[in-house]
Amino acid sequence: MSHFTKRFSRLKNEEDTGFSATATGRFLHKDGTPNVKRAGLNPLEKLSWYHTMIGLKSWKFISALILSYIIINIIFAFVYYAIGIEHLTGIDKSNWRNEFTDVFFFSSQTFTTVGYGRIAPVGFLASLVATFEAFLGLLTFAIATGLFYGRFSRPRAFLKFSENALIAPYKEGSALMFRLAPYKNNSLTDAHVILIAAIGSKHNSQDPKEFFTLKTEISNINSLVLSWTVVHKIDEDSPFYGNIDDLMNDGEVELFIQIRAFDEGFANTVVQRTSYVTQEIINGAKFLPMFRPSENQQTTVLDLDKINLFEKVNLK
Amino acid sequence: MSHFTKRFSRLKNEEDTGFSATATGRFLHKDGTPNVKRAGLNPLEKLSWYHTMIGLKSWKFISALILSYIIINIIFAFVYYAIGIEHLTGIDKSNWRNEFTDVFFFSSQTFTTVGYGRIAPVGFLASLVATFEAFLGLLTFAIATGLFYGRFSRPRAFLKFSENALIAPYKEGSALMFRLAPYKNNSLTDAHVILIAAIGSKHNSQDPKEFFTLKTEISNINSLVLSWTVVHKIDEDSPFYGNIDDLMNDGEVELFIQIRAFDEGFANTVVQRTSYVTQEIINGAKFLPMFRPSENQQTTVLDLDKINLFEKVNLK
Amino acid sequence: MSHFTKRFSRLKNEEDTGFSATATGRFLHKDGTPNVKRAGLNPLEKLSWYHTMIGLKSWKFISALILSYIIINIIFAFVYYAIGIEHLTGIDKSNWRNEFTDVFFFSSQTFTTVGYGRIAPVGFLASLVATFEAFLGLLTFAIATGLFYGRFSRPRAFLKFSENALIAPYKEGSALMFRLAPYKNNSLTDAHVILIAAIGSKHNSQDPKEFFTLKTEISNINSLVLSWTVVHKIDEDSPFYGNIDDLMNDGEVELFIQIRAFDEGFANTVVQRTSYVTQEIINGAKFLPMFRPSENQQTTVLDLDKINLFEKVNLK
Amino acid sequence: MSHFTKRFSRLKNEEDTGFSATATGRFLHKDGTPNVKRAGLNPLEKLSWYHTMIGLKSWKFISALILSYIIINIIFAFVYYAIGIEHLTGIDKSNWRNEFTDVFFFSSQTFTTVGYGRIAPVGFLASLVATFEAFLGLLTFAIATGLFYGRFSRPRAFLKFSENALIAPYKEGSALMFRLAPYKNNSLTDAHVILIAAIGSKHNSQDPKEFFTLKTEISNINSLVLSWTVVHKIDEDSPFYGNIDDLMNDGEVELFIQIRAFDEGFANTVVQRTSYVTQEIINGAKFLPMFRPSENQQTTVLDLDKINLFEKVNLK
Repeated sequence: MSHFTKRFSRLKNEEDTGFSATATGRFLHKDGTPNVKRAGLNPLEKLSWYHTMIGLKSWKFISALILSYIIINIIFAFVYYAIGIEHLTGIDKSNWRNEFTDVFFFSSQTFTTVGYGRIAPVGFLASLVATFEAFLGLLTFAIATGLFYGRFSRPRAFLKFSENALIAPYKEGSALMFRLAPYKNNSLTDAHVILIAAIGSKHNSQDPKEFFTLKTEISNINSLVLSWTVVHKIDEDSPFYGNIDDLMNDGEVELFIQIRAFDEGFANTVVQRTSYVTQEIINGAKFLPMFRPSENQQTTVLDLDKINLFEKVNLK
Repeated sequence: MSHFTKRFSRLKNEEDTGFSATATGRFLHKDGTPNVKRAGLNPLEKLSWYHTMIGLKSWKFISALILSYIIINIIFAFVYYAIGIEHLTGIDKSNWRNEFTDVFFFSSQTFTTVGYGRIAPVGFLASLVATFEAFLGLLTFAIATGLFYGRFSRPRAFLKFSENALIAPYKEGSALMFRLAPYKNNSLTDAHVILIAAIGSKHNSQDPKEFFTLKTEISNINSLVLSWTVVHKIDEDSPFYGNIDDLMNDGEVELFIQIRAFDEGFANTVVQRTSYVTQEIINGAKFLPMFRPSENQQTTVLDLDKINLFEKVNLK
Repeated sequence: MSHFTKRFSRLKNEEDTGFSATATGRFLHKDGTPNVKRAGLNPLEKLSWYHTMIGLKSWKFISALILSYIIINIIFAFVYYAIGIEHLTGIDKSNWRNEFTDVFFFSSQTFTTVGYGRIAPVGFLASLVATFEAFLGLLTFAIATGLFYGRFSRPRAFLKFSENALIAPYKEGSALMFRLAPYKNNSLTDAHVILIAAIGSKHNSQDPKEFFTLKTEISNINSLVLSWTVVHKIDEDSPFYGNIDDLMNDGEVELFIQIRAFDEGFANTVVQRTSYVTQEIINGAKFLPMFRPSENQQTTVLDLDKINLFEKVNLK
Repeated sequence: MSHFTKRFSRLKNEEDTGFSATATGRFLHKDGTPNVKRAGLNPLEKLSWYHTMIGLKSWKFISALILSYIIINIIFAFVYYAIGIEHLTGIDKSNWRNEFTDVFFFSSQTFTTVGYGRIAPVGFLASLVATFEAFLGLLTFAIATGLFYGRFSRPRAFLKFSENALIAPYKEGSALMFRLAPYKNNSLTDAHVILIAAIGSKHNSQDPKEFFTLKTEISNINSLVLSWTVVHKIDEDSPFYGNIDDLMNDGEVELFIQIRAFDEGFANTVVQRTSYVTQEIINGAKFLPMFRPSENQQTTVLDLDKINLFEKVNLK
């Protein structure tokens, strides 16, 4: 037990976090993925290729598709070449380069089922391979269709978090705060926050960390349409109470945040996670407003650029 | 604090609404979308194109598809033209108009993978572009397949709300009521209502608004097959108690309604929202019945035309 | 209030059922759909075509697809004919019958994007229509793909219910029972039952009906792999208590059953409903067992044929 | 009642398990599927073909697709043959073998909508069949698209369980333990465990079994990113208390485990089940650690190979 937590022996880890108290490094990356490596299985067993494909960035996903398309056509081009180009009608045999490209294009016309027919198979083997290639092509595009749908229908929360958590004046004392806002044209309702702190010592990283579920002033919000400032009041029930400066200087704090809401467009539960480590917590600052009435007073404008705007203040 | 709410200091906002007390204008549009503008990000970042595409009206969606198809084919037609039409067999070269339209049609025959073959690519570059166009075509239709599925499988509640909320006689006193009914052949079970009121002053729109969760006589209904009249009894626990005429004349009231139910066809939770502002609340009226036995007494007929029928009554 | 319920004034309708107490006829059809007609809107507004298409029986769905295919091709055949068959190459013009069928087949080859090329468009108008038809064909199959997926991925419970509910001896007294079993290779966990009774008078159908939530001995079951006999004990808290023979002879009883479970294959909540009316309730009978050990004692055999087997017994 | 359970008469089956107390053999197979056979319906009625197709191993699924493709083409080849090959242009009629393979390839070119056109239908009947085959081909690939998507988007938990459950020293006494870990790049949050024991006698398999819900030290875990050791403390409330050796020698114990969690990639609830029978429970052993800090101390390494590593220990 670190010296920070001795004073708070009455605090208990209310909910198991699934993290190891002796783990090292950040628990969650900034994007909410856990900082854990899996070993001891071969790579294929450790990968859910579907999770991988729907999680890829768009340009990587598109590149992977184009690359597969090119490679498959090159392979089939070689197969047709091996069978003999005399089994394909309409090939331009003026030189080997034209031959090969024509075979390649025949392959692509088969794979995509365009089948102009300028080049067409005539012998048994070439026809058989083409029969198989067209079939493979259709299955490949069936899979691509599924992946596209899986990618863009994947329920995501589309939340922006402030870069920093702040320790700000609040009522008579102070509170730990961060804020978040939906940044796309999706509709989140019934949003919940779970806020957990892992506290350890900076100087002795072998010390087991301790976990605390932090109470929030409002943990449930009906419609998440504006920004939401999540507030953990630092009172007697908080592990930060009377302890803030020590923790900020000599402690290792990590805040885990999980937001769960219902998205009406996806008609599904969406979850987003992030974490703040000690260096990302600012002691003595408060957020500046990020929404305001529009000029004609008929609507509210949410300024997403301002999500991390704060000013330094003195804590009492 | 407005003068309306001073009297009800014991009433508390039980659930945070996610709306700002200082916001201006209507909170929710009539169709349930929030009256908030997002600023400070570039438009692409602020749009979830999937949410946009599945939310478009059908005719706009179809038009967008057709337009994309035409534009893509025009672009490719220019590319083939630039490469040189001598690389396409079967082009009608009698005049430039025929040339261009033939190139355009070749492009469309490639993009859709019809590939009649009357016009076909022969050189390297033209073949390469066609190879790519056919691939692009298939991916485009893969995406369109996903969007179509996303659009028509999107769980929606298909509820009609009465245009007005009424303040009607109820038991010994009065109650705020509105009603709703499912209007399509879907099956909603386990329906819940959440009813929240925002109350402000008409004359001082800068005054912060206050939010109240209104209790309803029945907040949960097992099978939503007929109309459902949601009733908020105006008793001592209601912010409307002893206050109705004042509020209707000098106040700004907005009722937020959220209905959540399980749809058996979609096998999913569906949510629909709407709101009523002061002008849409009628003080002293009651709904007329909207369902009746069929003539042969063997079934019940729900008359969706009558959902907003009411008659004026005097409140005690 | 009917004379049956006078005696049970302490019983309350715990949960609103969504049905009207003055409704006539059966509330739910045997297959669980509500016995309600919607009037007052035009048919298109009242239909969710997606719910309709995924709810159609398979042979009707397939027939609808084939019919649409034929009709679309006939329409396009007429269009090409109107444009002039001289704009299509390869048409057999030996007689008008051959002409028309060739145009029809050209249309189908375009719509399905087969595009053999034996027949191909040459003029501007014919090419334009073909361009549009191929596009329409691909979108149609995109929609068909979505509908097929929507149909077979639609979460369904696949439960068989006994045809009759029984009033059987149970412990010291008697109980109302029915049973159900999953009949397909799906895996249901965490199953819940909701059992509601509507009670009215046979002789006065204008009397309002009353609704009672009936308690069940077990309302929640962890894994629904064998048959489940749902038991409502007829004790002092039951509206049937001391009243069974009267109700069976002079009353109108309808039991609504809703089963909700989690299906692991669909990874979704599934719901199935049914109802039993007075004539389907047998007073004095008990179910015969429907599962037994296999011959080698290594597994349990569930005999789905026997789900409605019962024997008459005398109630105490 | 077996002699094991007489002593624990105060223990009750808290939750109905859905299994029969008189069932024979293992209740759940190791992979979590129930050990029950369904009889009394014809095979088609008992199979949900969708559940079957999405549950098939990949190689079986692919083989089924390829086989269907070959069979369909052979059937259509015979149909075209019966109609007469003079109705197909471009057939190589040099010998019957070439004829048949050309007809077969024409069929496959139609079914996949490649339609090179080297072989094309000319008469009415052949064209009609080809029209139908292309349509059938597109619908088949529509279904295949749905099945592929259904297969790879099917929410699965991807959990590895230890092969053995252990009875290990725990605090002052002992506890029943097993462990599990996610082995793929998926993100599970909000995981719950349900642990049920079925206890019977080894020597008298006709004796009805009894079911107990076993309490676990932690039954809920926020983020399932490392291994999770589920612990059932053997105290006075446990049916194993003071009874372990007897049960292990003369009893028949089966532990049912169900893990339910939310997967962020699938955005869905996932469920996985397994069971341990007497022979898989080791009396007197404890698990060895399976995660450790990485060498650079910046991350945690989870060693999935070690999930079943334990050492023998003496229980107090």
